[in-house]
Amino acid sequence: MAQARSAGPAQPSARRFDPDRRDRLIDTALDVIAEHGVAGTTHRKIAAAADVPVGSVTYHFKSLDDLLTAAFTRLAERTAARYAEDLGTAESPDEALDIITGYILGMLGSPGTLLPSYELYLMAARRPELRQITDRWMSRSRTALAQHFDAGTTVMLDAVIEGLSMHSALALEPLPESLVREALQRVVTPR
Amino acid sequence: MAQARSAGPAQPSARRFDPDRRDRLIDTALDVIAEHGVAGTTHRKIAAAADVPVGSVTYHFKSLDDLLTAAFTRLAERTAARYAEDLGTAESPDEALDIITGYILGMLGSPGTLLPSYELYLMAARRPELRQITDRWMSRSRTALAQHFDAGTTVMLDAVIEGLSMHSALALEPLPESLVREALQRVVTPR
Repeated sequence: MAQARSAGPAQPSARRFDPDRRDRLIDTALDVIAEHGVAGTTHRKIAAAADVPVGSVTYHFKSLDDLLTAAFTRLAERTAARYAEDLGTAESPDEALDIITGYILGMLGSPGTLLPSYELYLMAARRPELRQITDRWMSRSRTALAQHFDAGTTVMLDAVIEGLSMHSALALEPLPESLVREALQRVVTPR
Repeated sequence: MAQARSAGPAQPSARRFDPDRRDRLIDTALDVIAEHGVAGTTHRKIAAAADVPVGSVTYHFKSLDDLLTAAFTRLAERTAARYAEDLGTAESPDEALDIITGYILGMLGSPGTLLPSYELYLMAARRPELRQITDRWMSRSRTALAQHFDAGTTVMLDAVIEGLSMHSALALEPLPESLVREALQRVVTPR
């Protein structure tokens, strides 16, 4: 990216010297979705935010659906990868739950992930074909959790983390850390 | 409503004989939100769906925000009231968890509640002033749960139900009933 930008003034053929443009447009799309929601996201807004001609956005993404699908796929993969990495640093189930507690309580602090995630869930609830993305995301989250917990517990825990994150982000008073930690502990404790 | 409709052909002064119209428009707004999302909801669409002039919708709801707030408030109050009633029929914590399990697994079957709920969450995540509605809803849900569980457990359980409902609705393969029931049981079981 930096190379392309320093290559000199814009010229009609600049696109061919910007091989990362498609990639960069996907990131920009995520920013635009976070700020304006899916409903307010257009080729034009993404072009303006990425400082490229609208034609470049329509060249790389024929339809808004292509663009949203690419953006949400990236959101899911990037978030899942970081999650797996973070959980990989835990040396015990207890440590894993500590890390997860931090994730849950920090959700509000990262609207860049939270809001587009909810946008994705809402779209997926309406349009089953998008559930490929949410399903793969859930599957990767569970694989990350499976580093520390049994199969059934990971499915439960994954859903529980979702709910705790959501309520923590939406509540006027955030959930107490001790309560979040206790809920997680209970869920991983077989009776 | 039925009376107003049977009062004869539409006439300019019909509104004054339709005291329930505001009320009915709120229900219609919820239907329109469920079908088109907040982004696709307009005074015009609600008027068409309710079979009234657009001017009648703008008369009762000056802004789209007024209308959305009224609609989401009703969604929250109606859902919370039914929930409290249903949980009130349970004669033990176990029975309450059975009822909740049914709720969680049935969410996909009632898109009329699920989709507007997610629309509300998303709006509330962006606009803190709407969290009055989600907060009151959470508070009522917890009160309903408190018929059977202690204070800390109700807060955990409420969040856990949210997450299980969401994952059950979004997953390509619904969560197994036994797993949902087991997750609930674990959450209400102190260590």
